Amino acid sequence: MPNSAVLLIDCPDRRGLVARVSSLLYEHGANILHADQHRDGELGLFFMRVEWELGLADSDSRFDLKRFKQAFAPMARELEMQWTLATNEIRLPVALFCSETLHCVADLLHRWRSGELDCDIPLIVSNHCEVEALAGFYGVRFEYVPVTEETRAGAEARQMELLAENGVELVVLARYMRVLSPTILRYPASFINVHHSFLPAFTGARPYQAAHRRGVKLIGATSHYVTELLDDGPIIEQDVTRISHRDQVEDLVARGRDLERIVLSRAVRWHLEWRILRYGNKTVIFD
Amino acid sequence: MPNSAVLLIDCPDRRGLVARVSSLLYEHGANILHADQHRDGELGLFFMRVEWELGLADSDSRFDLKRFKQAFAPMARELEMQWTLATNEIRLPVALFCSETLHCVADLLHRWRSGELDCDIPLIVSNHCEVEALAGFYGVRFEYVPVTEETRAGAEARQMELLAENGVELVVLARYMRVLSPTILRYPASFINVHHSFLPAFTGARPYQAAHRRGVKLIGATSHYVTELLDDGPIIEQDVTRISHRDQVEDLVARGRDLERIVLSRAVRWHLEWRILRYGNKTVIFD
Amino acid sequence: MPNSAVLLIDCPDRRGLVARVSSLLYEHGANILHADQHRDGELGLFFMRVEWELGLADSDSRFDLKRFKQAFAPMARELEMQWTLATNEIRLPVALFCSETLHCVADLLHRWRSGELDCDIPLIVSNHCEVEALAGFYGVRFEYVPVTEETRAGAEARQMELLAENGVELVVLARYMRVLSPTILRYPASFINVHHSFLPAFTGARPYQAAHRRGVKLIGATSHYVTELLDDGPIIEQDVTRISHRDQVEDLVARGRDLERIVLSRAVRWHLEWRILRYGNKTVIFD
Amino acid sequence: MPNSAVLLIDCPDRRGLVARVSSLLYEHGANILHADQHRDGELGLFFMRVEWELGLADSDSRFDLKRFKQAFAPMARELEMQWTLATNEIRLPVALFCSETLHCVADLLHRWRSGELDCDIPLIVSNHCEVEALAGFYGVRFEYVPVTEETRAGAEARQMELLAENGVELVVLARYMRVLSPTILRYPASFINVHHSFLPAFTGARPYQAAHRRGVKLIGATSHYVTELLDDGPIIEQDVTRISHRDQVEDLVARGRDLERIVLSRAVRWHLEWRILRYGNKTVIFD
Repeated sequence: MPNSAVLLIDCPDRRGLVARVSSLLYEHGANILHADQHRDGELGLFFMRVEWELGLADSDSRFDLKRFKQAFAPMARELEMQWTLATNEIRLPVALFCSETLHCVADLLHRWRSGELDCDIPLIVSNHCEVEALAGFYGVRFEYVPVTEETRAGAEARQMELLAENGVELVVLARYMRVLSPTILRYPASFINVHHSFLPAFTGARPYQAAHRRGVKLIGATSHYVTELLDDGPIIEQDVTRISHRDQVEDLVARGRDLERIVLSRAVRWHLEWRILRYGNKTVIFD
Repeated sequence: MPNSAVLLIDCPDRRGLVARVSSLLYEHGANILHADQHRDGELGLFFMRVEWELGLADSDSRFDLKRFKQAFAPMARELEMQWTLATNEIRLPVALFCSETLHCVADLLHRWRSGELDCDIPLIVSNHCEVEALAGFYGVRFEYVPVTEETRAGAEARQMELLAENGVELVVLARYMRVLSPTILRYPASFINVHHSFLPAFTGARPYQAAHRRGVKLIGATSHYVTELLDDGPIIEQDVTRISHRDQVEDLVARGRDLERIVLSRAVRWHLEWRILRYGNKTVIFD
Repeated sequence: MPNSAVLLIDCPDRRGLVARVSSLLYEHGANILHADQHRDGELGLFFMRVEWELGLADSDSRFDLKRFKQAFAPMARELEMQWTLATNEIRLPVALFCSETLHCVADLLHRWRSGELDCDIPLIVSNHCEVEALAGFYGVRFEYVPVTEETRAGAEARQMELLAENGVELVVLARYMRVLSPTILRYPASFINVHHSFLPAFTGARPYQAAHRRGVKLIGATSHYVTELLDDGPIIEQDVTRISHRDQVEDLVARGRDLERIVLSRAVRWHLEWRILRYGNKTVIFD
Repeated sequence: MPNSAVLLIDCPDRRGLVARVSSLLYEHGANILHADQHRDGELGLFFMRVEWELGLADSDSRFDLKRFKQAFAPMARELEMQWTLATNEIRLPVALFCSETLHCVADLLHRWRSGELDCDIPLIVSNHCEVEALAGFYGVRFEYVPVTEETRAGAEARQMELLAENGVELVVLARYMRVLSPTILRYPASFINVHHSFLPAFTGARPYQAAHRRGVKLIGATSHYVTELLDDGPIIEQDVTRISHRDQVEDLVARGRDLERIVLSRAVRWHLEWRILRYGNKTVIFD
């Protein structure tokens, strides 16, 4: 993977947006690797992701990111753009939150170790101790933060302290079985959760039991950004698998684990590669 | 396909059920083609489907269905079985109900003509006239029965008259956009519907619009038996397809049509082949 | 669907291609609906599809396609572009070729009638007569052209005559069970075929038999452009479905029909919407 | 999971097989949990899997497996049955073979630790050392056995020694990138491999490169029993995922890893649960 920069834009739709952005990049000598746009005709919105090579640091052909940013900022203001400019030279610090069930954490850690997830993971937080050995194996700091209904405020204060200490910008709820309060959700990081159903079906607790009771023929899993409304945030990825009348609840749980691993790891990867734009309660995925 | 008989059983679970049924069939000389069982351990229920060859009518080796039935009935009583004994020598009379959207009706008629659906289709009923030419092409009687909120009772009386006249035992709601009243649902036939969402998500009207608004990444379709609760009957089959932020509502509608055709035609075929057992609000599919 | 124009481009990759094309469109007042690019870094190729509104014919705000074309042509020459400029105001004339099995033809005709396929279908050619009634129902001219090993040259001459008479630009082989010779493939039209396997597995005749013999757990279907090498042309779309040891060859055939309908109809729709770029033996699908 | 026994049978098809087996079980007081049959009409073969409760060891209601076996053996001889009688009270000893790529090994070890795979794993063998730390974390003995073209015979002798020492009955090739010789394949254990393509497409080395070159729209993975013919053994499970022209070979590799994990872990689980019957070059999966 070469050193590259990504520019993510959303703004009111108008003529010439692609021309103006791509011309500015061209003038600054960018070699574009990928460019993707989307227009929501109904809402009159425009979305763009463009990725280009930076070249080696200190080389003559190095793209001058600072100069580009200075030229781009006034254009963005004029066109009422919301934008993010990121490079893969800075790795995002990510914290994993989990409870007793470890298949998602184990999966994310293995993907991280094998280079599939390009980030730092300085911290694992859990309200249980099962994950401690795994954290040790991967050399990640583990913090046990017990939570009860009564102690949630204090526990979340401790969690935010840990996020701040580690400069965390993305919190992945990898089967963390506690609801987060609006307070911690205002912490300046993104929160990605995996819910073990095909949302919006079977929100809330015990979705596999509910799916079994309803007699569905497919079960699913959903990764989404967390908002204050439970299981209602912008959906990032979903997948399903076929089941039959033979499958009992424990079979659904087992089959669901494969779905959860996949939808959660895709969501994390897309977030790390700046492929996701949130708008309203939805996402644009530039994959 | 050879001439064959199917026995469908559900009863309280106890030891020796498979042995007793299969021994009785063996004693009567049955050559079993397929046998399948299911046990719901939680509810203590047992389900079985067994299919065997009948042989040619009037041949010496013809299985004596009448004699078997006389021997089976007392055993079934003793074991508290609910059961159906059917043969593929009698074709089920099926009525199709539809509205303006014809992709499901056209698909079912083509499958019927090409031999995929082994039934009679003596009747198509619609509250619109679009289907008339198609019915004519396939040589099926078409009846226009307009329905408004005010005239539903009279319309359903006419529909039941038509079902009775044609001896209909299965009514397929092939994108019929009117809710059936409890009165017609008490008519002694099965009613199969297709709902254009992945139930239980997006029940009721305009599910593609709701799916688009929620920002899901997969859309689905569901075929189910109709009960008095809207979109709540036993699910027979479901399927989904991947969509993206690029897809507008009209794209979902178009992609959904392929799902609807498939889940509805499978449900009809399984029903015709006596592969479905309903229990509570669920189905066992012996496919 | 608004009146729109599509520009499809492939050319050697170089900096500034997006900027130059989008700027030229902007200067001519285009309101871009969709734009999509792809870069093949390995081969050094660039691909682009851009679609914009034309506005009503004779209105003041009508996009001047002729003037744009005059300005674009020299740029295209300079940048060594291969390109196609098309509008949805002209419907492509399509011929369907089939044999005895009619599920694909019936499906395409229904989709065409219901507005899903935006083209003309002036002609159906078959080496059998089964399709005649269906052609009549949809008001399409049917031509019976029998073919044997010995008469192929004459039959193809007749087929080309029919293509020419009807101005056909796309030939869809909807389960047409004869191999086309290099001669007819040089006719200036595109040829799309559906093969009833997951290519490159099971090329040639009787793929369902071969799949059953090999004991695969999924079967597939593939739509592709036809080239002189049998079942080797650029793949447009593929899909698969799960099977089990219970499925006999005739079950594979039945299940495969659903796949064939879907992959073929998608390929035809994408071709009609100018979403496909062929290069080498592959396709770029801008969906 | 209760203590249970499984009987797997294949034999020439004849009337009364289900009746005779289920009656014998009934006479011995078996409480059947699952029973499944399959008939290959073409080859005249019958397959059966039946699972029943054993009850607690030393309890009065304990099923007498020894007495059943004595009664079953003569019947099996008479009916020319091949059969296996197994219980989940004895855990199968499994060895994992791998090379440098560890996603499959890591996945199997995690599933084993979390109870999803009911077996012993006394041994991991690799021709590389990358897996050593992982083996240590899960407390499994690791043996480094380097292999070159020249040293294969000696290396396999060492591998067989290790298999024998550990009583291994199932060898899982979890991305072990060396071809096994006929000699080691005659070792009395089952060998399950994962191949990173949708077999029979893209056999041999570098299947993702071949898939990319051919321009397929789906990639797959296959788990199968190993035979002397490379990538030709009985297929156990397959799965596919959609790709696009945007995906480079490294993307296929990454997406394929998820498929490989799933198809391999399913194959191992089904083998451990005695759900697989091999016949000819195919499998019956009683899932």
